[in-house]
Amino acid sequence: MANAWKSIQDCEAFGTLKRLAEHPFDLTAQRALTPERLQSCVCRGEVFDLLYPCQRVTSEVLDGLQSLADECALVDQFAEMRSGAVMNRIGKFPSEERQVLHTASRDLFSPVPACEAATNQAKAELERLKAFLHELDQGEVCNADGEAFETLIHIGIGGSYLGPLSIYEALLPYQKKNRKVFFISNVDPDDSAAVLDQVDLSKSLVLVVSKSGNTLETLSNENLVRSSLKEAGLDPARHCLAVTGQSSPMDNPDRYLRSFYLFDYIGGRFSSTSMVGAVTLGFSLGYEQLLEFLKGASLIDYTAMEKDIRKNPSMLLAMLGIWNHNFLDMGTVAILPYSQGLHRFPAHLQQCDMESNGKSVQRSSLPVQLKTGPIVWGEPGTNGQHAFYQLLHQGTEDVAVEFIGFRRSQRGKDMVVKGSSSQQKLVANLLAQSLALAAGKDDENPNRSFQGNRVSSILMGEQLNPKSMGALVSLYEAKIVFQGFCWNVNSFDQEGVQLGKILAVQILSVMQEETEEESTAAAFLKAAGIK
Amino acid sequence: MANAWKSIQDCEAFGTLKRLAEHPFDLTAQRALTPERLQSCVCRGEVFDLLYPCQRVTSEVLDGLQSLADECALVDQFAEMRSGAVMNRIGKFPSEERQVLHTASRDLFSPVPACEAATNQAKAELERLKAFLHELDQGEVCNADGEAFETLIHIGIGGSYLGPLSIYEALLPYQKKNRKVFFISNVDPDDSAAVLDQVDLSKSLVLVVSKSGNTLETLSNENLVRSSLKEAGLDPARHCLAVTGQSSPMDNPDRYLRSFYLFDYIGGRFSSTSMVGAVTLGFSLGYEQLLEFLKGASLIDYTAMEKDIRKNPSMLLAMLGIWNHNFLDMGTVAILPYSQGLHRFPAHLQQCDMESNGKSVQRSSLPVQLKTGPIVWGEPGTNGQHAFYQLLHQGTEDVAVEFIGFRRSQRGKDMVVKGSSSQQKLVANLLAQSLALAAGKDDENPNRSFQGNRVSSILMGEQLNPKSMGALVSLYEAKIVFQGFCWNVNSFDQEGVQLGKILAVQILSVMQEETEEESTAAAFLKAAGIK
Repeated sequence: MANAWKSIQDCEAFGTLKRLAEHPFDLTAQRALTPERLQSCVCRGEVFDLLYPCQRVTSEVLDGLQSLADECALVDQFAEMRSGAVMNRIGKFPSEERQVLHTASRDLFSPVPACEAATNQAKAELERLKAFLHELDQGEVCNADGEAFETLIHIGIGGSYLGPLSIYEALLPYQKKNRKVFFISNVDPDDSAAVLDQVDLSKSLVLVVSKSGNTLETLSNENLVRSSLKEAGLDPARHCLAVTGQSSPMDNPDRYLRSFYLFDYIGGRFSSTSMVGAVTLGFSLGYEQLLEFLKGASLIDYTAMEKDIRKNPSMLLAMLGIWNHNFLDMGTVAILPYSQGLHRFPAHLQQCDMESNGKSVQRSSLPVQLKTGPIVWGEPGTNGQHAFYQLLHQGTEDVAVEFIGFRRSQRGKDMVVKGSSSQQKLVANLLAQSLALAAGKDDENPNRSFQGNRVSSILMGEQLNPKSMGALVSLYEAKIVFQGFCWNVNSFDQEGVQLGKILAVQILSVMQEETEEESTAAAFLKAAGIK
Repeated sequence: MANAWKSIQDCEAFGTLKRLAEHPFDLTAQRALTPERLQSCVCRGEVFDLLYPCQRVTSEVLDGLQSLADECALVDQFAEMRSGAVMNRIGKFPSEERQVLHTASRDLFSPVPACEAATNQAKAELERLKAFLHELDQGEVCNADGEAFETLIHIGIGGSYLGPLSIYEALLPYQKKNRKVFFISNVDPDDSAAVLDQVDLSKSLVLVVSKSGNTLETLSNENLVRSSLKEAGLDPARHCLAVTGQSSPMDNPDRYLRSFYLFDYIGGRFSSTSMVGAVTLGFSLGYEQLLEFLKGASLIDYTAMEKDIRKNPSMLLAMLGIWNHNFLDMGTVAILPYSQGLHRFPAHLQQCDMESNGKSVQRSSLPVQLKTGPIVWGEPGTNGQHAFYQLLHQGTEDVAVEFIGFRRSQRGKDMVVKGSSSQQKLVANLLAQSLALAAGKDDENPNRSFQGNRVSSILMGEQLNPKSMGALVSLYEAKIVFQGFCWNVNSFDQEGVQLGKILAVQILSVMQEETEEESTAAAFLKAAGIK
């Protein structure tokens, strides 16, 4: 089966698209952005509509992208993935050799889940979590003085951190009373110290998240927090929870009040809907809202099975990205949510996308022939308008923009100033930026000219809430997976993080004066004291 | 004078460097990263050393970069700027026509300031701030019930937000007891609502920052907060402070407990050491630590006057950036601080850099011939190692990395786990990443090969504190200014933000149904309800 996979450059449609890319649709032309175009370039999906009139595409280009998607069998591969195929591998070389089943963790709402065994495991963990949350609510789980736990300290890094953090932040208005979450991630000791300064440990649960059970940063931080618990006269085993892989070094019920499993077929950066996200979100939002979040995520997985790119927002977003990256040569993607709640979501996507598709080897083990994953970055609008948008409009780097917006605010506290509410101003700015980037403007003052033809799409939802947040996470996961299929890379491993780890251990051992000072250039001049 | 300015492509050294760039130094060669290279490629500066062994440069390249810097008269221009020349202009076209004097706001420690008039204005504002902070400490300024103000709500956007925010976050361990700052920036009504949910307004000062006094987002948020103050039975004039330009619409003492001036020769993104940053930092840290912060910033301004790039870290950082961007063709710069306190500093630099140098027109008003400002992005290490570093090591996009690190932690709470402290692990990881990116590694498994020659530099300081934070802000401001000189762009205006504003107003007026529904494609289909 692996040999059947091909990269877009092996597709017949590739040449056609290359030709079309020589004269992409001109968004600055007199009647380019007509009401008809604005109305027809909309892909309606579950929870989100994808608006793409400000992309440099025609229906010919879309047809070409559809052919690429068909030739690469994107939906078939997605279906294989969901049903449990071993997708995490590289040709005949040693690799993780794993299934990729993050979708199973939310495939709870269909009578026939795509991979029943994995979904059953997810359901079992969810049931255990539900029981635990119930015991918390009922006061059956409490501290030694019988008081309720009001704080959860989430310790994890990478995929065990940015997903849960960005979702937690996005859903703060839905948080239960007297529940608060703090995150510790960095091995920088100031990170844990800052959190420990703010919390009442006696009323805190400590959730330690590591699939392998031996993530250096997480273990160091767990140690720091356990030692603080002991200093405060508290029993760590009464406060600590674990999310980890079966039979990892952390899979040890003696040390944890409760443990939940993350299965090896779920990669860290795709783990938000597994126990990695579920425990923290369940604590914060309660079980019912957690289910809403999972439901939103599952809806998009079903839509992602649609073969028509004009009806499948994740796949269309993926293919527009391919068009901008591989045909129009844009090296970066800016994720610009017009929603302050999503302020950390670009960082989550940066991780999920760049760790998945920042690869140079195809699944066949041959080198890639095209550019693979782009650089992903971004900050919320309207803030960015007063910051880096200058470069988007008038700089020499061409950026593919993905806006995210909502028609209604989360909290509903608003006010009319100068004739409009803040929410109206927010949405108007989003749409205006998309048009301004596209249309540009001539001016006799060259410094006030805008060349235009800067592309963007807009994911527009009704409101940011648990369900739409689940959908957003899952929509982007599918986009990333589809693009990985297009480049024929293994989006599910991360061999690129190994070399730095090895060198860090070497430098540490010199810092500890355990080895001769010869290695690694005198351990980078004795850990950069630089003599 | 303006005609004397030239861009690097007009310099004699440009051709030489172009030739050298065809065969840049190979960091993967057998004996490339010798102890001698590691030891000699260090630019020692005030507060920070700049380590650049992992750049693809030889002394020939450095000599060429020195020639570029000389031919472009970078230091002379910097001196002109500091002494009050009108640098913010474009040829003969209408422009802001302003001096650029952010350096004057910290030029307090030299017997002969570069621009005495501006420094005197800065001193006067600082004296007024000192008096105000004293009154706060003494309880002479307090709420209607005689209670101390414990919270400051900082309302501002762009340059009036990211600088103060990122510095405030970096210096939290130095915060005075019972002082806390919240920030409201986004016009998204959920941003203000989230802050208002958390604060006790009766004990809150509200600082409104807008140079023009008519920033839409800031006024909307001020209105929202004032209305909440009134609802809580509080008198806004007793709680609100202003930082604004002289004779702006906000320059109205009746509405504010106290007002401080931001002068028109200081641009928002360069305003951290003006009253824009000073009021908030003074409230949080106290006046003495604020002075330390300003002192750190001033030290770098003096060093930036050194013409030898090997002794001037800001200029060397700038020229290495030019080498990577214009000669080795890297489109983005990743700012990776190994310090959790600096978690928002990349966002500040993203703003300061991209808004300054994301330009397409030279100061002569002719179009630029080279790529100008890069895309700037980044997140703290070690977190990033578990996220996007995969792409840095093995992706197809080549990124110029700028690490920032400190030998000691801020809070000193640490613990030895597996033979090393967290701080040691942090520094070891930083150095290891720099070496790993540079040296790469061959492996018979192509998926475990690292091609290397990925460049990075390291700014290494002793500890993150008010003084070093001031130095860091100022070091990067100077870097950005030097690069703008190299490209011969006006780094001090932001015409690129105008078009979006105009279109937003048009869309808003249709949303309010004040105009016919014809304009701007039926106001983007009635503000993207999309009928």
